[in-house]
Amino acid sequence: MTEPGVLSQIRVVLARPSHPGNIGAAARAMKTMGLTRLYLVSPREFPHPEATTRASGAADVLENAVVCESIAEALTGTVQALALTSRHRELCAPPRWLPEAASELLQLAASADVAVVFGNETFGLSNEEVAQCQRTVTIPANEEYPSLNLGSAVQVIAWELRRQALEGGLPSLPQQFGELATHDDVERLIEHFELALVGSGFLNPKKPGRLIPRIRRLFGRAGLEREEVAILRGALASLQEKS
Amino acid sequence: MTEPGVLSQIRVVLARPSHPGNIGAAARAMKTMGLTRLYLVSPREFPHPEATTRASGAADVLENAVVCESIAEALTGTVQALALTSRHRELCAPPRWLPEAASELLQLAASADVAVVFGNETFGLSNEEVAQCQRTVTIPANEEYPSLNLGSAVQVIAWELRRQALEGGLPSLPQQFGELATHDDVERLIEHFELALVGSGFLNPKKPGRLIPRIRRLFGRAGLEREEVAILRGALASLQEKS
Repeated sequence: MTEPGVLSQIRVVLARPSHPGNIGAAARAMKTMGLTRLYLVSPREFPHPEATTRASGAADVLENAVVCESIAEALTGTVQALALTSRHRELCAPPRWLPEAASELLQLAASADVAVVFGNETFGLSNEEVAQCQRTVTIPANEEYPSLNLGSAVQVIAWELRRQALEGGLPSLPQQFGELATHDDVERLIEHFELALVGSGFLNPKKPGRLIPRIRRLFGRAGLEREEVAILRGALASLQEKS
Repeated sequence: MTEPGVLSQIRVVLARPSHPGNIGAAARAMKTMGLTRLYLVSPREFPHPEATTRASGAADVLENAVVCESIAEALTGTVQALALTSRHRELCAPPRWLPEAASELLQLAASADVAVVFGNETFGLSNEEVAQCQRTVTIPANEEYPSLNLGSAVQVIAWELRRQALEGGLPSLPQQFGELATHDDVERLIEHFELALVGSGFLNPKKPGRLIPRIRRLFGRAGLEREEVAILRGALASLQEKS
């Protein structure tokens, strides 16, 4: 799997984060999902050892972080910014459905810089800050308990962006690694089954019912591998021998 | 927005978690996404004040958590379990693309219990634990830094399930007609198989090799129906009787 290059066009902007540990957690969440460009607007404490500790193997994201004095500065050069908000604001566009917002952002990121903007842990984004973003989005969390911390919110958004970036160019993964049995291998296995079960008295050849069709359907659904057919035939032979 | 009821059918199983703080973080991540059913297999320390602190407003998820002694116990009554793994294992089905695995799990959850299984923070899941799950999945993280902690992994999976549950209109499952067998039904079938093949001499209990794991994998992939389990057990019994 190659990293989708589009993710490197996406800035993650944290506005006025209070706790350095959350900056570290955000950096870690970003890097696990292939995002690297962190912008910090007026962080209360940064750099800070707790940020570095929580970032774990993502210390490079912190080292390359750009510290800014305003949202405007952090968004300079971007063509779209997506503000994460937890409530609807009268003067803003209504929040989008997250997957749609992520999709639009990714399309733009193919040719330009874009940003996702997260607010302060307690107060979120101010109306003025949201107003500088072209889109707003809400993580559609459990209404009874929508309490994602900053690191978790970054993790969810980053996964959503990554999922869509990977799906863009990624065919479905193969479900099966072993060599598949041929149709005739499976037919012979079913015949073997039938013979063994007639021999044991479980199957009455005069009243076969749905037994063999059921077994056939099961094998068809599983998509038997060559080696599995061999195992099952060996097992049947051993059980027949004894009888 | 109403909570999608299907999410309440999904168990989150944490196998042998070392750090109580991670149990709390997992509970919080679950509840933000509308998941509530936590199963803990042999947690090192639980209950624990650090778990409660990290759970924050999700203390009820901890209070209702079911503590078990084995994965088998945690999976009793489920029709599909999805194991989160970070690497491919020889005797298991190859990992699925996460959104596909989540989609299948959700469809089954509409009518039965299902589970997502997370391993120990350091060691992950053992091969024996993975073998009891019908599906495996990997979070397709940045290969240079795939280091999600337990709470973040739960957050990503929980969001993926929630997103799809909210989006609705899931693609339909591959053809399946009957009622699915539960985890414990299938375990008993495998035990029966083993007994019969030891009896017939096909399986040497001192050198069991890969025979039973292969059969287990085949059944897991097929997704056995209740009636199929009955047929196979009847067939085995008849073959044993003769011998």
